[in-house]
Amino acid sequence: MRMYDLIYTKKLGGALSPEQIAFWVEGAANGSIPDEQSASLLMAICWRGMTTEETLALTLAMRDSGKRMDLSAVPGIKVDKHSTGGVGDKTTLILGPIVAACGVPCPMFSGRGLGHTGGTVDKFAAIPGLKVELTDAEFIQSLQETRFANSAPTGKIAPADKKLYALRDTTATVESIPLITASIMSKKLAGGADALVLDVKCGPTAFMKTLDDARTLAQSMVDVGTAHGMQIRALITRMDAPLGWAIGNALEVMESVEILRGEHGDSELAQMSFRLAAEMLIMGGAAKTLPEAQAKVRMAIQDGSALETLRRFVGSNGGDAKALDDFSLLPQAGRTIAIPADRAGYVSALDGRALGLLAMDLGAGRKDQHDVLDLGVGIRVHVKVGQRIEPGDMVFTAYTKAGHPVKAEAYLATLGLASDRPEAVPWLLDTIGC
Amino acid sequence: MRMYDLIYTKKLGGALSPEQIAFWVEGAANGSIPDEQSASLLMAICWRGMTTEETLALTLAMRDSGKRMDLSAVPGIKVDKHSTGGVGDKTTLILGPIVAACGVPCPMFSGRGLGHTGGTVDKFAAIPGLKVELTDAEFIQSLQETRFANSAPTGKIAPADKKLYALRDTTATVESIPLITASIMSKKLAGGADALVLDVKCGPTAFMKTLDDARTLAQSMVDVGTAHGMQIRALITRMDAPLGWAIGNALEVMESVEILRGEHGDSELAQMSFRLAAEMLIMGGAAKTLPEAQAKVRMAIQDGSALETLRRFVGSNGGDAKALDDFSLLPQAGRTIAIPADRAGYVSALDGRALGLLAMDLGAGRKDQHDVLDLGVGIRVHVKVGQRIEPGDMVFTAYTKAGHPVKAEAYLATLGLASDRPEAVPWLLDTIGC
Repeated sequence: MRMYDLIYTKKLGGALSPEQIAFWVEGAANGSIPDEQSASLLMAICWRGMTTEETLALTLAMRDSGKRMDLSAVPGIKVDKHSTGGVGDKTTLILGPIVAACGVPCPMFSGRGLGHTGGTVDKFAAIPGLKVELTDAEFIQSLQETRFANSAPTGKIAPADKKLYALRDTTATVESIPLITASIMSKKLAGGADALVLDVKCGPTAFMKTLDDARTLAQSMVDVGTAHGMQIRALITRMDAPLGWAIGNALEVMESVEILRGEHGDSELAQMSFRLAAEMLIMGGAAKTLPEAQAKVRMAIQDGSALETLRRFVGSNGGDAKALDDFSLLPQAGRTIAIPADRAGYVSALDGRALGLLAMDLGAGRKDQHDVLDLGVGIRVHVKVGQRIEPGDMVFTAYTKAGHPVKAEAYLATLGLASDRPEAVPWLLDTIGC
Repeated sequence: MRMYDLIYTKKLGGALSPEQIAFWVEGAANGSIPDEQSASLLMAICWRGMTTEETLALTLAMRDSGKRMDLSAVPGIKVDKHSTGGVGDKTTLILGPIVAACGVPCPMFSGRGLGHTGGTVDKFAAIPGLKVELTDAEFIQSLQETRFANSAPTGKIAPADKKLYALRDTTATVESIPLITASIMSKKLAGGADALVLDVKCGPTAFMKTLDDARTLAQSMVDVGTAHGMQIRALITRMDAPLGWAIGNALEVMESVEILRGEHGDSELAQMSFRLAAEMLIMGGAAKTLPEAQAKVRMAIQDGSALETLRRFVGSNGGDAKALDDFSLLPQAGRTIAIPADRAGYVSALDGRALGLLAMDLGAGRKDQHDVLDLGVGIRVHVKVGQRIEPGDMVFTAYTKAGHPVKAEAYLATLGLASDRPEAVPWLLDTIGC
């Protein structure tokens, strides 16, 4: 088999066989195929696309380049969730404990943050003592004891994806539906879950800017999962303003706990977390219909079992569960700076991307993958889109270390104001496979 | 400037600026831009194409990566010819001396052969003693003394093209109209001629398989030359059967001399060579109209001045001009094997590509660029498309070294036979810019 023939076939718009795709992925990972040939094929894939069969073959070849979790020791249908990433997205911290409390095992591997979006692993790392890199045995034990486990992926998961992603990053070949699909799905399949709910973000702050693009990506992932015999569904959700009031790791733990306590129940963050959890309950066999699943979710909040599951998960993985009830035990920022409105109007927009970058600048996120985070810093957003504000009303609080300069203008520039109340836009834009 | 931005721009279908293209070509040649980024951009160019302005910028950046010939010491409008390559194509050996004999300086850099097509330099190398790698001073002296010069290009001509071509060769990005255009035109512009006639081959044996593709390539080269202020015209000529009776280096010298003597005057090879020469005479200012130019070409044959120019060119560059009159002084094959027809019919096709590969196998061409040629071997084609043959009629003669196996079936398999006489197809398919 010659790599040249694969490139030429794809250049002309043909389909590659599973054997050809496995040959490429193996060669790219072990270095026997030079990077320039892989780069050329990657751009040809951006051009010509891939069939579902090809995308599945690429997914499986990347999955099989590394370790696969064997979760057969955990009884039940294991259900995972994946989000394509947003600012202030702490749904994993909320829905994981809910789903587990309702009896469905929820094994999750989460990433570290980079750029304007935070990472779930960093949020969990704000809980004192909590181990965020679990061994396989610890991961399985956490699932057995609490039905919830969350860990940073080890380098052994889909190393071929890591190699190809680094190449895509320098060759402008990241944006390709089949390549994005295979990158996500290879890691999800290696994680060992039986079913998967996808939260595909859509909007100016998200990777997918238009509803059409988001639908295409969601459909592609659902097609590949389905072709592999996996239960899989996708929600397409709006991403423009930050999700919830908290941006920053300890702050996001606080907001998650507040929702598990039953606060902010009508917020978009709560609604979205509860809906994703309900979809997971249906897939896990704990409910037959959406209303039934949603009732179970509400009950897990009301009876405290979801929050109790989070406490047990934290406690059984080395963390200090008391910090969930006493937020003074979480990492603290040295200083808080109140940023009031300087004008009046209806909030028409909150630029999530810009706020994510401001939080990164405070130390809550990474510019570079080697940056060390300040887990206590971040931003509290006091307003919501659609709300009327007057000059002097509190808009943001910056939680920052002492001495870090904070320019109020930069924060206020993220705020869009209109003279008329903007029309409400639903957070759930579409569902695929549900 | 970041290479990533160039790739991304082209991926989305945008145009690159001359500065961006120069940055890429320089970085690719000096190694500061990694091959995987160049490969990705090359495939994006295959996908999105290039405007004439971009193609000219790429041409000039590659030209300027190396040496440029300064032919200002040679008076007159210097006219070059380029062919995209065919089997048995020895037009340079014929038209160069004709054009020079008619008073127009003809500076030519020619390549070595690879694969099924031969190279003009190899054909000249069959003339005993003739230097085929001239220094700049020798090249200019040959032009001044005989108005004709032919040399293998030195490595100093367009080294960026050489680097990018090697990369295109392994990344399946050779076939792209702007990349082919810039590769050819960068070397032609570096060669220092003022005007250029292109012979774009078209057919199953040629690089351009369809008339549309050939027209597109010809138009692209004419557009780039015109945008650069160069006189440029293109003929699109049919390439399926070998051109002329000779395939193989010494044999092709013999056939060229025969045509310069006035033999085979109505053959396609002679007609094509004479027409290309006539176009060159018009560009060089030696004739105003095609009939006037064609009359001058015929005169240069009839009065022997063209053949005499070839003799003088050979003599002034170390070669034995007597070999042009006494072919026994040219390299000889050890053995000739006659291959007669085994069936009757009208010759409907001669597979030039297959015959080129058979000649390569005899030692007339290179499988690999390091192969050493046997300049005396080759194939004589005794038949023409349209001709009636009977079993036993001579079809081919293989000129081979003693002991080299020759399978008559392989030769006869290149011959298409039909029960009815095939319709004649003209050799000149179209002209661009003429």
